[in-house]
Amino acid sequence: MTAEHDTLSVGMAGYAFMGAAHSQAWRNAPRFFDLPLKVRMAAVAGRDEAKVKAAAEQLGWDSTETSWRALVDRDDVDLIDVCTPGDTHAEIAIAALEAGKHVLCEKPLANTVEEAEAMVAAAEKARANGVRSMVGFTYRRVPAIGLARQLVAEGRLGTIHHVRAQYLQDWIIDPQAPLSWRLDKSKAGSGALGDIGAHIVDLTQYITGDTIATVTGRLETFVKERPLPSEHSGLSGTAGSGTGPVTVDDAAAFLAQFRGGAMGVFEATRFANGRKNAIRIEINGSRGSLAFDFEDMNVLHFFDGDDSSTTAGFRRILATEADHPYVAAWWPPGHLLGYEHGFTHQVVDLVTDIAKGADPAPSFADGLQVQRVLAAVEASSQSSSWQDIPA
Amino acid sequence: MTAEHDTLSVGMAGYAFMGAAHSQAWRNAPRFFDLPLKVRMAAVAGRDEAKVKAAAEQLGWDSTETSWRALVDRDDVDLIDVCTPGDTHAEIAIAALEAGKHVLCEKPLANTVEEAEAMVAAAEKARANGVRSMVGFTYRRVPAIGLARQLVAEGRLGTIHHVRAQYLQDWIIDPQAPLSWRLDKSKAGSGALGDIGAHIVDLTQYITGDTIATVTGRLETFVKERPLPSEHSGLSGTAGSGTGPVTVDDAAAFLAQFRGGAMGVFEATRFANGRKNAIRIEINGSRGSLAFDFEDMNVLHFFDGDDSSTTAGFRRILATEADHPYVAAWWPPGHLLGYEHGFTHQVVDLVTDIAKGADPAPSFADGLQVQRVLAAVEASSQSSSWQDIPA
Amino acid sequence: MTAEHDTLSVGMAGYAFMGAAHSQAWRNAPRFFDLPLKVRMAAVAGRDEAKVKAAAEQLGWDSTETSWRALVDRDDVDLIDVCTPGDTHAEIAIAALEAGKHVLCEKPLANTVEEAEAMVAAAEKARANGVRSMVGFTYRRVPAIGLARQLVAEGRLGTIHHVRAQYLQDWIIDPQAPLSWRLDKSKAGSGALGDIGAHIVDLTQYITGDTIATVTGRLETFVKERPLPSEHSGLSGTAGSGTGPVTVDDAAAFLAQFRGGAMGVFEATRFANGRKNAIRIEINGSRGSLAFDFEDMNVLHFFDGDDSSTTAGFRRILATEADHPYVAAWWPPGHLLGYEHGFTHQVVDLVTDIAKGADPAPSFADGLQVQRVLAAVEASSQSSSWQDIPA
Amino acid sequence: MTAEHDTLSVGMAGYAFMGAAHSQAWRNAPRFFDLPLKVRMAAVAGRDEAKVKAAAEQLGWDSTETSWRALVDRDDVDLIDVCTPGDTHAEIAIAALEAGKHVLCEKPLANTVEEAEAMVAAAEKARANGVRSMVGFTYRRVPAIGLARQLVAEGRLGTIHHVRAQYLQDWIIDPQAPLSWRLDKSKAGSGALGDIGAHIVDLTQYITGDTIATVTGRLETFVKERPLPSEHSGLSGTAGSGTGPVTVDDAAAFLAQFRGGAMGVFEATRFANGRKNAIRIEINGSRGSLAFDFEDMNVLHFFDGDDSSTTAGFRRILATEADHPYVAAWWPPGHLLGYEHGFTHQVVDLVTDIAKGADPAPSFADGLQVQRVLAAVEASSQSSSWQDIPA
Repeated sequence: MTAEHDTLSVGMAGYAFMGAAHSQAWRNAPRFFDLPLKVRMAAVAGRDEAKVKAAAEQLGWDSTETSWRALVDRDDVDLIDVCTPGDTHAEIAIAALEAGKHVLCEKPLANTVEEAEAMVAAAEKARANGVRSMVGFTYRRVPAIGLARQLVAEGRLGTIHHVRAQYLQDWIIDPQAPLSWRLDKSKAGSGALGDIGAHIVDLTQYITGDTIATVTGRLETFVKERPLPSEHSGLSGTAGSGTGPVTVDDAAAFLAQFRGGAMGVFEATRFANGRKNAIRIEINGSRGSLAFDFEDMNVLHFFDGDDSSTTAGFRRILATEADHPYVAAWWPPGHLLGYEHGFTHQVVDLVTDIAKGADPAPSFADGLQVQRVLAAVEASSQSSSWQDIPA
Repeated sequence: MTAEHDTLSVGMAGYAFMGAAHSQAWRNAPRFFDLPLKVRMAAVAGRDEAKVKAAAEQLGWDSTETSWRALVDRDDVDLIDVCTPGDTHAEIAIAALEAGKHVLCEKPLANTVEEAEAMVAAAEKARANGVRSMVGFTYRRVPAIGLARQLVAEGRLGTIHHVRAQYLQDWIIDPQAPLSWRLDKSKAGSGALGDIGAHIVDLTQYITGDTIATVTGRLETFVKERPLPSEHSGLSGTAGSGTGPVTVDDAAAFLAQFRGGAMGVFEATRFANGRKNAIRIEINGSRGSLAFDFEDMNVLHFFDGDDSSTTAGFRRILATEADHPYVAAWWPPGHLLGYEHGFTHQVVDLVTDIAKGADPAPSFADGLQVQRVLAAVEASSQSSSWQDIPA
Repeated sequence: MTAEHDTLSVGMAGYAFMGAAHSQAWRNAPRFFDLPLKVRMAAVAGRDEAKVKAAAEQLGWDSTETSWRALVDRDDVDLIDVCTPGDTHAEIAIAALEAGKHVLCEKPLANTVEEAEAMVAAAEKARANGVRSMVGFTYRRVPAIGLARQLVAEGRLGTIHHVRAQYLQDWIIDPQAPLSWRLDKSKAGSGALGDIGAHIVDLTQYITGDTIATVTGRLETFVKERPLPSEHSGLSGTAGSGTGPVTVDDAAAFLAQFRGGAMGVFEATRFANGRKNAIRIEINGSRGSLAFDFEDMNVLHFFDGDDSSTTAGFRRILATEADHPYVAAWWPPGHLLGYEHGFTHQVVDLVTDIAKGADPAPSFADGLQVQRVLAAVEASSQSSSWQDIPA
Repeated sequence: MTAEHDTLSVGMAGYAFMGAAHSQAWRNAPRFFDLPLKVRMAAVAGRDEAKVKAAAEQLGWDSTETSWRALVDRDDVDLIDVCTPGDTHAEIAIAALEAGKHVLCEKPLANTVEEAEAMVAAAEKARANGVRSMVGFTYRRVPAIGLARQLVAEGRLGTIHHVRAQYLQDWIIDPQAPLSWRLDKSKAGSGALGDIGAHIVDLTQYITGDTIATVTGRLETFVKERPLPSEHSGLSGTAGSGTGPVTVDDAAAFLAQFRGGAMGVFEATRFANGRKNAIRIEINGSRGSLAFDFEDMNVLHFFDGDDSSTTAGFRRILATEADHPYVAAWWPPGHLLGYEHGFTHQVVDLVTDIAKGADPAPSFADGLQVQRVLAAVEASSQSSSWQDIPA
């Protein structure tokens, strides 16, 4: 801690979709959880001065910077929260770590395995000086997901035989949807695979406590040319004049083998008409099964194979009980949490770990491992073969 | 048994919707279940000779009669299956019982309490001579419903606090739907209340093993005048010229108190747009809860309050396991049964009881008790007061 | 506005469950919505100085008061947010209105119709001076509910035939759950009926744009004696020594007739085992139907009777599109909102109305009307008769 | 037709699970549908005389044979219905076709591609003489599936982007479940892949009207050694002494590319704990999507992308309307059909085609094509590569 030992002073780079979600988390975490450190939303950085000032005002940051370097250089900032597009993650995070700042980096960790490896090296080095780093797979912190992991860890599923996971969206199904940065490989690194496939790789590995050993997959770009956006805008971009090539995948599917023997089937797409943010995970084990769908995110379905066949059935667990992860801090049972709460829980866990000098999870190494799985999928798609992921 | 001691010879009166369902049951029951008696589909009766002959051919009856009296008079008929409209039930069933024939009578038992009382008296008298009678509340024999009763009987729900039941259809929501016999009080006796409300009264009393003590309700006729049908047809009737008054209720709702202390809330309607045959029952007890919807009829939802709060949730039990009622005779787990199977199970239970000289359930007395509940609802609607049902 | 004309300065009385929810709303509303006024969380009041200070710290209020009167007396407070138990609403709200403060009052408006009438009178009087008042039926501001109202208003349901609504909880099903203030008539005024039944009365009237004309119902207290709490605590109270009588209803059920002709069936209970916060509303009209369950609160089910019978079916609308009420300010489609967002939307609407000098809804008069419905239900339960609600 | 020109006389080989389902279909089809030919259940064949006689009595066949050859040789049999294990299909079907009998052959058509090719050749040859053949993919004839095909054919889904299909069962998850003939490659040919994977290959190709061009997959046998059955029994077999090797797959997963460009993801397993007979199919197209689960088999979910975003949502279509395939012959809306009805519809279509001299579908050639897909999956699993299916 730099300024005050009881306060964690945060600087955030980027203020778009993820920036708004992270701001909400930094703002609310101390209101519901007893954090070991106070949180100060010290500064937000962005290149456009007017816009970043407006964002700071809107999102509640104390000050602004017009470059991430300036943010990293500030003495009164203890932690850098990286919410920029993937192509900038490595540079910002490494600089921050080298400057002795803790880092929370949005997923995917980086756009390439090489960058991710450099980040892991920097994190390892910084760790020796008590600097912490974490990659932002926030869906882990949905209570129903936490409960899923807990049930597997307790052996309630037995040996895992099957993992099937889909991340289904439909936001670019219209061929006239403009060519946003997320469809540009140089900025986004990857399409559906890296943006949303990364989540289901992380989630299934997290829930099962296992890792993927080998994969074979196929990437697809259904719409290969799109209108250029009228301005450099994100999801809400409107079409301008001219068209450009889509350089990332619209959809990805892959088979996987987990080290523990489970068969995995994965699918990530932005072309599943009618599915808005359907993260669907089903896990079948020798003693029981689990099913989850983010479109009903407060629910975990659990089949307990130990139940009598007369009364066995998937239980619709509303994960809003005080004994479910994170829930006690919020509302009474049946009062649902939303998308943004995962980000708040992420702040809680990160601040707690920083205060007690523990390594947060998922680490940069975890983010790199996910990256390697994605790279293997991409390679397998190109070579039409199975690709192993190093252990 | 008259003709042969190892065969039950059946005569059916009526051959419309219910006649088709009953025929299917008589035909199939011996194919899947080991019945203690052979079943002979001896004769079907109807007033129109050409039509009844065509029906016998279609439905598989050995012979025809053009009056129910001729059917009752036949020496080679052991059982009369009454599938005619409610206004004829009493006359046919009483004559059959007096002729020493077993009787299966479709619900509602009769159109009035007085008729039903006469039927019960006839059934009691015939019973002394070993003649059996049963009223056709077939939904009791859906496996999921049988399982529900079993769970309550085993105490898995504890003390019952709440019973809520709805029977929702929408087949006359169009004001131009014609005035079929089901909308004519002189034929049908009652509208939604007697036709479908009767089922949820029977089902909830059956599942809970309790009876309704007192009710207050309201009947409503939303469309008071309708086109006359082009001919005397049933559900599929088309409109002719002129209109006539609807003399039965389109919908009924009532509150009830069960003798055991449970609060009941009931609703039966033919005006629930989009609900086709939604028999929805939910029962909440001190130890657990049950929920059922006929539109997903192979499923019973069961909440076991003894489960840990961490993993408690409504279990979606697919009632297709060999240890669920009636299921072992059919298909492997997950191979669903349909509407008509309840009728087959009814035949199985009836033939079994006849063979072993036992009293089938639901008895005519059970049918009368349901009738009394319905009559009390109707009286309460007229008097805007609570009405007690005699124990 | 007192202090600054561009800022609304808020003082909140009470800081328990509702206080936390309101604080979250005041804090977050300006971060996602462009409010016409700045919001200052000026002060929170509570009787216990240590506790109120801790609450202010936790919930983010600038200062504290140990009496609501002191809060009302403060010049730098423009609006009093009443989050105390129902027996204090009238006194606080009337004093605040007389002091020229806007008032947001939690539901139920008051514990008795008489108190509510006095509050409406005070609100009417204050209104002449530009002082605004609102009662906090926040569930109106769940996007799926707003969409429901919109569909009815657009005529997509046609004439409403049926309204069925249930508010099901189970938090006192254990007879050993202690006697909290919510089970004490002198504090809470009413039990399930007033606490949760009030919501479904308001919601169904809001969605249909109609009002209830007459009711008949029954209240029930299943567990009549409970352990006294170890201290004066809320939901989370633990049992102390001795027992005391439960003086409110555990459950309530009633039939209703809407002025527009719809039949209503209502049920509110704290004894529905396994149902945590199930606000279930189904509305059937001549052109279509709606169904909602708060346990899946981002979803509205809509049956469009104009669809061809071949493809008609209840549509599971995920009410997270930018064109759904309030949603554009939040996240992309499929990123769910939670319980607390309704409170934020309430702040948005209230601040907007105050800024433009409009009357917020639901008004105190709306709150009184709900109160009259509840009083009629209670009277009908005592007299076993139908009770009319004045128009 | 041999004996009488207005009657189709049927001989069935095998009388286990499939034999019972087919018998039910032959028995009931004429009772609900106006068939152009009468159906006579002439004879059933099985090796054990006592057992086949008992089966004939139970299932309602007029006579028995103790060899399939005797059945084929009978002059009074017009059609051979092959319900034996897969290793006998080719021999029986070819002999029957050569004898001028129509053939209905259960799926999978054969245990090997070579056998299936021979069967197709025989069918082609027989076809020249007016002899018809059909393979029994009955799930095509579930009304919801027929509706799905119809919606795709009408263009309601636009260009198909994604096909995901799972067939999930759990009946051998217990390692002590005995080694039935279905786990013996010499009898069954294949495990989950051929037994249930065949269905989802057929169904997805049928619904989309497209075919699979290339696949890569993996087969898995989780339990490699099992107790020998006490006798040669089927699903219900109990364990005897000693163990034997499982020679088929417990589970299979594969990626596919359809000729029309859709990405396919398939999974078939007998190890999905809690899933009993979950045939789950989801299809995403540029204009809409479909979803189906056999565990709720009367329902088709349809997302119409042409609906306004305000009211778009997956429609839960209860496929029990008179305008849904096959439904008009059965019950009113909302009165569900079950597993066995698909077999009845199969009989209806087959008899209709025979009477009018049309080629039934799916043909033996269709069965062969499915077989080729399965063989390609198996080959891909062995070679860890993509395998093309000849057009």
